[in-house]
Amino acid sequence: MNLDQLDPQQQSDLNDWMELIRIPSISSDTSRVSDVERAADWLVEKLSMSGLTVEKIPTKRHPMIFAETAKPDGDHVTVLVYGHYDVQPAGDESLWTSPPFEPTIRDGNLYARGATDDKGQMLTHVQSVCRYANQASGPKIHIKLMIEGEEEVGSANLDEMLPQLSDKLACDVLVISDSSQFADGQPAITLGLRGIATYELSVYGPGRDLHSGAFGGTVMNPAIALCHLMSSMIDAEGRIAIDGFYDSVKPQSESEIEAWKNLPHDDETYRESVGAIELFGESGFSTNQRRWARPTFDINGLTSGHQGEGVMTVLPSTASAKFSFRLVPDQDPQAISRALQDHVQKHCPKGVRYDLKADHGAGAMVVDADSPFVDAAANAITDTFGVSPVLIREGGSIPIVGRFQEVLRCDCLLLGWGLDDDNLHAPDEKFRIADYFRGIDASGRLWQELEGIGKKP
Amino acid sequence: MNLDQLDPQQQSDLNDWMELIRIPSISSDTSRVSDVERAADWLVEKLSMSGLTVEKIPTKRHPMIFAETAKPDGDHVTVLVYGHYDVQPAGDESLWTSPPFEPTIRDGNLYARGATDDKGQMLTHVQSVCRYANQASGPKIHIKLMIEGEEEVGSANLDEMLPQLSDKLACDVLVISDSSQFADGQPAITLGLRGIATYELSVYGPGRDLHSGAFGGTVMNPAIALCHLMSSMIDAEGRIAIDGFYDSVKPQSESEIEAWKNLPHDDETYRESVGAIELFGESGFSTNQRRWARPTFDINGLTSGHQGEGVMTVLPSTASAKFSFRLVPDQDPQAISRALQDHVQKHCPKGVRYDLKADHGAGAMVVDADSPFVDAAANAITDTFGVSPVLIREGGSIPIVGRFQEVLRCDCLLLGWGLDDDNLHAPDEKFRIADYFRGIDASGRLWQELEGIGKKP
Repeated sequence: MNLDQLDPQQQSDLNDWMELIRIPSISSDTSRVSDVERAADWLVEKLSMSGLTVEKIPTKRHPMIFAETAKPDGDHVTVLVYGHYDVQPAGDESLWTSPPFEPTIRDGNLYARGATDDKGQMLTHVQSVCRYANQASGPKIHIKLMIEGEEEVGSANLDEMLPQLSDKLACDVLVISDSSQFADGQPAITLGLRGIATYELSVYGPGRDLHSGAFGGTVMNPAIALCHLMSSMIDAEGRIAIDGFYDSVKPQSESEIEAWKNLPHDDETYRESVGAIELFGESGFSTNQRRWARPTFDINGLTSGHQGEGVMTVLPSTASAKFSFRLVPDQDPQAISRALQDHVQKHCPKGVRYDLKADHGAGAMVVDADSPFVDAAANAITDTFGVSPVLIREGGSIPIVGRFQEVLRCDCLLLGWGLDDDNLHAPDEKFRIADYFRGIDASGRLWQELEGIGKKP
Repeated sequence: MNLDQLDPQQQSDLNDWMELIRIPSISSDTSRVSDVERAADWLVEKLSMSGLTVEKIPTKRHPMIFAETAKPDGDHVTVLVYGHYDVQPAGDESLWTSPPFEPTIRDGNLYARGATDDKGQMLTHVQSVCRYANQASGPKIHIKLMIEGEEEVGSANLDEMLPQLSDKLACDVLVISDSSQFADGQPAITLGLRGIATYELSVYGPGRDLHSGAFGGTVMNPAIALCHLMSSMIDAEGRIAIDGFYDSVKPQSESEIEAWKNLPHDDETYRESVGAIELFGESGFSTNQRRWARPTFDINGLTSGHQGEGVMTVLPSTASAKFSFRLVPDQDPQAISRALQDHVQKHCPKGVRYDLKADHGAGAMVVDADSPFVDAAANAITDTFGVSPVLIREGGSIPIVGRFQEVLRCDCLLLGWGLDDDNLHAPDEKFRIADYFRGIDASGRLWQELEGIGKKP
């Protein structure tokens, strides 16, 4: 598309997106509390201006935004759009080509933290709902929006408040765009997400950093102890070595396994896209199974001792690792935490203490592929993208989705407009500008399709 | 001692020490080149003012200072004092009680980077030599000083230039104070040092940081690969697991093993002094053997992925470890590097690349306990400290000492005035002010003792 010839509507949609991105609403960073608040206020303003009823709901940490269109008369479908306005930290800013919170256009993409996840994708629905609310014929479905500010830190407050909000949020179908297209030009409907459990393990050795010459050999080095511990959690073949870890993993259905074999996927193309010298994972499973249907273990960060320039022959007093598991049906994050505690206790080397801290956990979820809402979404996407969506799962986690299903007993549509190489949670996050506009169109088409269903089937 | 009642000489000695410490001469930090130069110039000024012949010898990196007293007539001993004016980096400054380069007096100690290692200890000889050079009767021994600025980065240039400097540096005995007393109030003469070999291992995975949800399970995580690799280098019993690592380790003499059993050492006191919950090391060896006579492996630093506040579920693209071995007679650092290369190549997990960089290496050294110079030093120390020194080894490394012995074919005296808890290479490095003054006195007594020997025996 030609970015020099945007129509006024597109220009306005692009401006909104850039405005929201410039607010560094990093929910995990305690020094960014007021920025998170500013992002919430931006949404309140945007939705109010379009005539929606808007409520800013305070929580113990960051506020949630609830908004809704006028309720139509007679039988109608009620939709709840869920999204989040908080973002991941930028990480090492020197790895970004342009500043993480200054949206920058290159090659048809908008680069910035939150460009896709989830400011860009969430805004596609905000824009379409604002227009739908104002259409001349009046809305024939009832659309609610719940946009929270704590998704990147585990949605603890929404999770806790969900039962008391259940009347307000009651819906027939939940719509979320926090996933990806299957490939460039091949949209998808995502029927499953992995769960997550995140931890930080700190190992404490001597009471202070020691000279490795004067003292080395007489006390356990906590960085060595940490490496032993982390290494013990997964074997050389990529299988997690924690007792009981796989016990409740539900085997994947044969029909899904077969369907995935027909997806337009090529391992070599995938390998190139991630820039690895070769792919590696649990043996006996395909790449798509490994990332969507198998549980995994990743170290997210390691810290110990001297990290600056040059040599410093220190025996560090502490070492720590941040790490996470991705879970699949029917693994329970609580059970995983207990198995992990037992493992660390059993494998911790002599001579050191440790502290194992669980951060957040959520189970995996799967969606019923036979719902009429899936058909409606497939129609809307096919009309807009010109291609039928494939039915896939995703490896990421949106912990709150499982809770919504549990409390609201609703169907769920995970519709992703982004691409796999959008660098979510990494430097140079981006979102293709044309897909942002297409997402707005597909979202608007979906509301029309849902008018046809009339009432929760 | 009462620091409020220093005599003018002591006040001047203290001022010199604090002046030199305030210059952050971190040899490994390329942004500190001019500070390293300033420290060298400070010494040139100090030594010239006392009438020594001084030469600033340029090298490819940081200059060396050579100085000497007037050569006496007739038979006389020639001494070479070696020291270094460069220091380790401060590390994490938030862990220091007072700023690392602002010398601060607390509880009779001077706290600062370089307080002991080696500015404080080196200055004890500089002060005593300046006085000896000016004594009324004229010097009866010939004292030379070689003070370099690259000890903390491996002394590469002194090492390389040593053969061409051999005439200038020719001596009967080398004197170095870069070691410790055995315990508070129990001085020592150090008859052995461990060697060293330092490395940095970087592991490279995907071409960019990836979202651990979208991609986790399909590529090797380089932080996991690094933990596997580091863990493979040493077993759970503290024995280094690199093939051939112990092949050339020379067994310790029975007489030394017996003598060490009589040292005033207590494991529980030692454990408390380092603040570990329990001691840990290679089985079958005492604590003193483990730190002085056995080779060891330490991880000095770990770096990967997200290290900031909060959770960031990233699959990092790189991970790296800084680590070092302490070596004993007759291990060869080159042979250790080859064994390590083979080990890493053999154990590197699939799916990642690595880069193994050797930094500096030096063999261990041992001193002849039967030399008359050891007797002279024992007398000087006994006179000053009121206690006979014990004969020990140290676990640290002064790589250049072995080279001096090789090229100059001299005897060697390692005389330490510091204490084991002086926090060398760590936050809150300190040196007891009374020991600084005692070191100056003992050094001066040594020059008198050496007058009695007359000529190289």
